[in-house]
Amino acid sequence: MTDQPSITAAILVIGDEILSGRTKDKNIGTIADYCTAVGIDLREVRIVPDEQDRIVAAVNALRTDYTYLFTTGGIGPTHDDITADSVAAAFGVSIDVDPRAKAMLLERHKPEDLNEARLRMARIPAGADLIANPISKAPGFRLGNVFVMAGVPAIMQAMLDNIGPTLETGLRVLSHTIEAGNLPEGTYAGDLAALAIAHPTVSIGSYPSMTQSGFANRIVVRGKDPEALDAAKGDIEDLVTRLRG
Amino acid sequence: MTDQPSITAAILVIGDEILSGRTKDKNIGTIADYCTAVGIDLREVRIVPDEQDRIVAAVNALRTDYTYLFTTGGIGPTHDDITADSVAAAFGVSIDVDPRAKAMLLERHKPEDLNEARLRMARIPAGADLIANPISKAPGFRLGNVFVMAGVPAIMQAMLDNIGPTLETGLRVLSHTIEAGNLPEGTYAGDLAALAIAHPTVSIGSYPSMTQSGFANRIVVRGKDPEALDAAKGDIEDLVTRLRG
Repeated sequence: MTDQPSITAAILVIGDEILSGRTKDKNIGTIADYCTAVGIDLREVRIVPDEQDRIVAAVNALRTDYTYLFTTGGIGPTHDDITADSVAAAFGVSIDVDPRAKAMLLERHKPEDLNEARLRMARIPAGADLIANPISKAPGFRLGNVFVMAGVPAIMQAMLDNIGPTLETGLRVLSHTIEAGNLPEGTYAGDLAALAIAHPTVSIGSYPSMTQSGFANRIVVRGKDPEALDAAKGDIEDLVTRLRG
Repeated sequence: MTDQPSITAAILVIGDEILSGRTKDKNIGTIADYCTAVGIDLREVRIVPDEQDRIVAAVNALRTDYTYLFTTGGIGPTHDDITADSVAAAFGVSIDVDPRAKAMLLERHKPEDLNEARLRMARIPAGADLIANPISKAPGFRLGNVFVMAGVPAIMQAMLDNIGPTLETGLRVLSHTIEAGNLPEGTYAGDLAALAIAHPTVSIGSYPSMTQSGFANRIVVRGKDPEALDAAKGDIEDLVTRLRG
């Protein structure tokens, strides 16, 4: 084990369309996978509506509690896109059309097409760094430890790829999955609890899912120390093998 | 319009496996769709890890702010299933094996198979009503305005079906979708903002998505008053038709 401090993160999804169910979020899973892959500990997710006071409150709560905050949604050209203004308000900084962002929009739009609405996408809080958008050019931005990204999954993914190299990362959390199949959780839960106590430096979880043919249970052991992980994995495999008899 | 108070809700998803990305949540979308269909205004979602202090804090924040709180996950038989104990702690009530819940488990398990781990699934906070689980019998429960449900989507859905008739519902939010197709958001954003001001009793949003052939934009108008909704819809359709030329 190591004393390296853990790097933590939260996600804030901004959008009435997610809360109404009309759009099913895909970004949470993408960012969660990314964090796990690079050793960032995703600790919380919130989804809030397109309302400035709600966005400001969530941004300020989450940027204080975690190393990084990733937001998605609300940075387009329409009146309901209020994320940039809300993040500026959360930080108490001004916001205006940013020449760097305007130049990016001009890569896609003719000057005569850069109307007031499109220029909204160049409104960037003072002090922010831009996050390039290779797909539709309108950038995201980083202000302090907050990364503001698009809601369209393909664009969010491209922005995440861009910011990835700039992120401080920690020791990766490694994991092993032990397939318990249709072995009922109730048959191994007692022994598994004892193994969790015996292996205090790893985290052991049991995750049921349902298939056409019934329950399919998985035991997952996670941790940063490979040796401790292997020891726990071995004990869990022995348990499952013994119970399968 | 009406003065009927709106019925609000939040969702709390409990589970390390969602935050790690290993499991992709499906319950948020299901509950969001349900709320929209019955006239409950889903206002917030949080995802937190399997840690009692985090669950307690989120339960107490969300049950205070909204009419209903729906939780998913963490009610199985293994040591990492701590939702019931955490909800009891949040309410400051005791928790113990509930004879009604034990009877439900005995519908599925022989008495000699009802070991200590399985009996964990019958631990219910004092004062709670049970939510039947037709699939694997282990019940969820309602305590005050908090509904505690399973994380396995099929079981969550069945529990949601069971609690549905007990929920107070509001006026349904009706919606119309106007397909803007590949008409760029930036071409209609200014006019749409003006329509949003002209139709203050409805909510107008513009939602881009990407397809193989480029952007596919949708304008969605939502509201509880059918006449106001139709008027806004008509104006937006006229706008899109005019711009499509």
